[in-house]
Amino acid sequence: MGSDSDLEIMAEAAKVLEEFGIAYEIKVASAHRSPELARKYATTAKTRGLKIIIAGAGGAAHLAGVTASLTILPVIGIPIKTKNMDGLDSLLSTVNMPPGVPVATVGINAGKNAGLLALQILAISNKNLEEKLTAHRKKMSAEVEVKGEKLFNLGYKKYLEK
Amino acid sequence: MGSDSDLEIMAEAAKVLEEFGIAYEIKVASAHRSPELARKYATTAKTRGLKIIIAGAGGAAHLAGVTASLTILPVIGIPIKTKNMDGLDSLLSTVNMPPGVPVATVGINAGKNAGLLALQILAISNKNLEEKLTAHRKKMSAEVEVKGEKLFNLGYKKYLEK
Amino acid sequence: MGSDSDLEIMAEAAKVLEEFGIAYEIKVASAHRSPELARKYATTAKTRGLKIIIAGAGGAAHLAGVTASLTILPVIGIPIKTKNMDGLDSLLSTVNMPPGVPVATVGINAGKNAGLLALQILAISNKNLEEKLTAHRKKMSAEVEVKGEKLFNLGYKKYLEK
Amino acid sequence: MGSDSDLEIMAEAAKVLEEFGIAYEIKVASAHRSPELARKYATTAKTRGLKIIIAGAGGAAHLAGVTASLTILPVIGIPIKTKNMDGLDSLLSTVNMPPGVPVATVGINAGKNAGLLALQILAISNKNLEEKLTAHRKKMSAEVEVKGEKLFNLGYKKYLEK
Amino acid sequence: MGSDSDLEIMAEAAKVLEEFGIAYEIKVASAHRSPELARKYATTAKTRGLKIIIAGAGGAAHLAGVTASLTILPVIGIPIKTKNMDGLDSLLSTVNMPPGVPVATVGINAGKNAGLLALQILAISNKNLEEKLTAHRKKMSAEVEVKGEKLFNLGYKKYLEK
Amino acid sequence: MGSDSDLEIMAEAAKVLEEFGIAYEIKVASAHRSPELARKYATTAKTRGLKIIIAGAGGAAHLAGVTASLTILPVIGIPIKTKNMDGLDSLLSTVNMPPGVPVATVGINAGKNAGLLALQILAISNKNLEEKLTAHRKKMSAEVEVKGEKLFNLGYKKYLEK
Amino acid sequence: MGSDSDLEIMAEAAKVLEEFGIAYEIKVASAHRSPELARKYATTAKTRGLKIIIAGAGGAAHLAGVTASLTILPVIGIPIKTKNMDGLDSLLSTVNMPPGVPVATVGINAGKNAGLLALQILAISNKNLEEKLTAHRKKMSAEVEVKGEKLFNLGYKKYLEK
Amino acid sequence: MGSDSDLEIMAEAAKVLEEFGIAYEIKVASAHRSPELARKYATTAKTRGLKIIIAGAGGAAHLAGVTASLTILPVIGIPIKTKNMDGLDSLLSTVNMPPGVPVATVGINAGKNAGLLALQILAISNKNLEEKLTAHRKKMSAEVEVKGEKLFNLGYKKYLEK
Repeated sequence: MGSDSDLEIMAEAAKVLEEFGIAYEIKVASAHRSPELARKYATTAKTRGLKIIIAGAGGAAHLAGVTASLTILPVIGIPIKTKNMDGLDSLLSTVNMPPGVPVATVGINAGKNAGLLALQILAISNKNLEEKLTAHRKKMSAEVEVKGEKLFNLGYKKYLEK
Repeated sequence: MGSDSDLEIMAEAAKVLEEFGIAYEIKVASAHRSPELARKYATTAKTRGLKIIIAGAGGAAHLAGVTASLTILPVIGIPIKTKNMDGLDSLLSTVNMPPGVPVATVGINAGKNAGLLALQILAISNKNLEEKLTAHRKKMSAEVEVKGEKLFNLGYKKYLEK
Repeated sequence: MGSDSDLEIMAEAAKVLEEFGIAYEIKVASAHRSPELARKYATTAKTRGLKIIIAGAGGAAHLAGVTASLTILPVIGIPIKTKNMDGLDSLLSTVNMPPGVPVATVGINAGKNAGLLALQILAISNKNLEEKLTAHRKKMSAEVEVKGEKLFNLGYKKYLEK
Repeated sequence: MGSDSDLEIMAEAAKVLEEFGIAYEIKVASAHRSPELARKYATTAKTRGLKIIIAGAGGAAHLAGVTASLTILPVIGIPIKTKNMDGLDSLLSTVNMPPGVPVATVGINAGKNAGLLALQILAISNKNLEEKLTAHRKKMSAEVEVKGEKLFNLGYKKYLEK
Repeated sequence: MGSDSDLEIMAEAAKVLEEFGIAYEIKVASAHRSPELARKYATTAKTRGLKIIIAGAGGAAHLAGVTASLTILPVIGIPIKTKNMDGLDSLLSTVNMPPGVPVATVGINAGKNAGLLALQILAISNKNLEEKLTAHRKKMSAEVEVKGEKLFNLGYKKYLEK
Repeated sequence: MGSDSDLEIMAEAAKVLEEFGIAYEIKVASAHRSPELARKYATTAKTRGLKIIIAGAGGAAHLAGVTASLTILPVIGIPIKTKNMDGLDSLLSTVNMPPGVPVATVGINAGKNAGLLALQILAISNKNLEEKLTAHRKKMSAEVEVKGEKLFNLGYKKYLEK
Repeated sequence: MGSDSDLEIMAEAAKVLEEFGIAYEIKVASAHRSPELARKYATTAKTRGLKIIIAGAGGAAHLAGVTASLTILPVIGIPIKTKNMDGLDSLLSTVNMPPGVPVATVGINAGKNAGLLALQILAISNKNLEEKLTAHRKKMSAEVEVKGEKLFNLGYKKYLEK
Repeated sequence: MGSDSDLEIMAEAAKVLEEFGIAYEIKVASAHRSPELARKYATTAKTRGLKIIIAGAGGAAHLAGVTASLTILPVIGIPIKTKNMDGLDSLLSTVNMPPGVPVATVGINAGKNAGLLALQILAISNKNLEEKLTAHRKKMSAEVEVKGEKLFNLGYKKYLEK
């Protein structure tokens, strides 16, 4: 991540990875304030055995793009919302990469989805993870269904009171 | 893709996959005009042996999201620019997915990058592809360098005349 | 609705329907997290006797569009404002549908107007409802007039103190 | 419509209505340049036997809203794209109506969808129209499927050449 | 004004008019919820002796435009910021009028400037008002100068502490 | 105007003034490239007998604001659309003035409306102009009515062919 | 700065300059409310020995542009975020200057960066300042590295608890 | 510059520098496609004797930011307009830098202003350049004045015919 102020969002990705038993490491390396650190991280990632990099940054959010330019590992970019511009600057700075260097961008502040996307990528060649993800989807759908039925039965007034 | 009018953009992804020798299939299935077709495609994709889905659509661009909701394969979304709103609607409709169902979004009309992202994902467990991608990056960098030197030597006036 | 976090907005629609004595049912069915549920709801709605569907969702707000693609019942879409992008993403994702599958979109978070629009549609062939709506408009206009006169008489200073 | 320069878009709605055998009338009445005309049209629409009004206008697009304020007939609004602001001004001026007076807004320049939405509304109490709409959806889906198969068989290169 | 919720902004205009001794009246008349009231107000304004109308409204802010279409008095429009879209919808709905019917638009929530603009218009043929406005400008400039000198002398730390 | 490239838009204002027999002068004076010229123009305008200033500029469009800061004459601002940002930058730079110095902003590129607004302001104390404006409004409305009837009679197909 | 309400942001620039031992003066001079003051400041700046001007303003933020038009000193513009439009209006009003009169624009509310940019400019011909800036960069990078290591060692849960 | 497709814009900066007799070099070095080249350029710039770097790039425009992170030379950023998003993505990616690493951003596609800003910076310690810039401003102002007078004398009709 570009700054430890982004940690709350990035931690959501970490939580998902833990939940599914996938090892990860978590680092701060600003593309602008510590460019050499970010560069070293990106250029050594593959040889250190990493398979996917999740990069989150805000404003003129270059971290994901800079990282992607230095490795052929898939880079998942999280546009972090800052105090100005409602996240639009972070989104556009992360997603509109030039031809040749893609960043797999998820939604603004979407730490959880970044983690899940990493899992879905790893599950291509990991049967066990695939099953876990399928189960997770079923559980998620069931939870929506339960809420829906509860709302249907209680009516919106009682439901809102809770 | 959601419509054959998106084909020019989607073909850029196909070209990249061909260039790197990766098999693919190419289909039209609108999330809105042919929802059952889109659904069948997404729900059977994994059992038919697909590893990644690239979905491109414009406007209220739901194809990538709808597909992602029906499979745990990674879905790469290409926001296709339409006649209105300069692609912003396509981008926001593709990227801002709810927690639980990510779409790996690339830039507006970024067909080539969608193909490259797919290759980078496959290269995690494909040594041969990894090498090809590394070579591709070197070639790309070298091309920029050659252009830069040519410009440096010719000066901008002569370079622009060509 | 796509999530029970949207209930406060959707409840405004329900309140209006109750006020006018129109039966309704209220459900949660995420287009992304419970796609089969959403699909079943949309495809069976007509045979279950529903006449209009009101769908509210936020972000990459696909629920209204997905529902509209699976039924020929009129679908009223409410773009729900999320924490990011000030509702613009929800609005564009709901309204800019491709030719062939319209969504009758109301304003951002406009639960009440969604309910009223449903009533106006039903009133086309319901004389009693028509009269109630006409009375409602008159009452609404009278309320504005009363406020206006009160303000005119009190002056803005006293009016603001209250 | 607010101006005869909007006719090309509005004609798409008319075409759809003709195709389905639904009678309609087509008028120009600017909310701003001919307010009395627009007012007379809206206030007499119901007694003249109209069931739905489709209003299209661009820029500070008030026609749909003004019409909706003067009738309880459902008003479908088409935001017409003008030379500036890429249709965003027309969309926001049409959709973000105050509580009490909804406009059923379709996409920017979405004349065809406005016509289809009108048909879907009328089909609630018109079995024959309902069947026609169901058939239209099937045909639309089949057309997408045919295109998809053609593309699958020809490959994108040959398809693009045509 | 379109709603008494806009009163706080509109009161700023009233305050300025009072300060300069210009008579005014203040009314609520929604273009959408009480269209006949708004219409009557606009069409009778000139004969009742009004010289300028200041109209404030939010969202699909039609009040200024509707009023302007019904009178040749100059109409000053104040785009009122609503909960969504940060005032952009109000601004575009107020300012982008079609050729033939202008609205003199001031900034978002700029009640005070609407009052001052009205005064500047009246001052064209009112020597006394002209002098008051000139004095007001001088006072305003002097106030800035005083603050500037205070800041220069105190330094920013002490100035911020106050 | 800020640049002679804005002349086509500004000429629309001039045409309207000529049509109504109101004397005017037309000047180029960039707020940025010729600040002293712009300043001299604004500060001497009142003593030279001008009653209203119409200022058009694009991009960081400061001309209207700068002029307004130097005179108490009403300043009508026309945001001129430039090659970038679709006129949004010009609009925001012109309209969002600080408290104390209003600019009467018309729509993007709305030269004609700027002229009409000037006429409406002058008509407050000019009976003859008032009558001309009233007649102009009637003519405008009649033209819309004629077009509407022609369209109603011909049908959209024949109308579009012409 | 255009108003003392901008002081909190502008003070960040002042702090940086103090930290590096560079003399500065700090003034309030509104481009709109005190145009003569702003003009005098800009036109005398060079002869009074200033080398760089930092101008911050919000809304229709003309101060930086007006200043730049009156001096050939480099002018650094800070777009100050106001209550409306999330700073976009301030940014566009500051940055999109016409050819001939540049403003060196930093990010929205970026007072600190404005100060640093001034230092970087002065450091071109000031060896001592150059060394200080190089040291500052190293320190900044080291701080990121320390945070990153702390996070790596503690894990995100413990780090967030602090 | 990030790509030779940006050359037309960047050449405007070069032309200005030539006109004022300031030596420059012109290079292509993509932050994403040739990161090592861009890095080497930025890190060696100071020791090679450069005083200012002008960096132009489009889309997720990282070149200026990446360069600024690797040198303490002032970096002037030109947001280059791309086919999508009207330059807004390029602008936000260039200007909204994190605290610590400023980029002096000029307007979208503002190559000429980037060159002039560089000259203004160099003129701080270059009397001869200062004089040239002062003369250039005068000439620019005189040109506007000449155009203005010509327009005043000819009237807009004859002026537009030319």
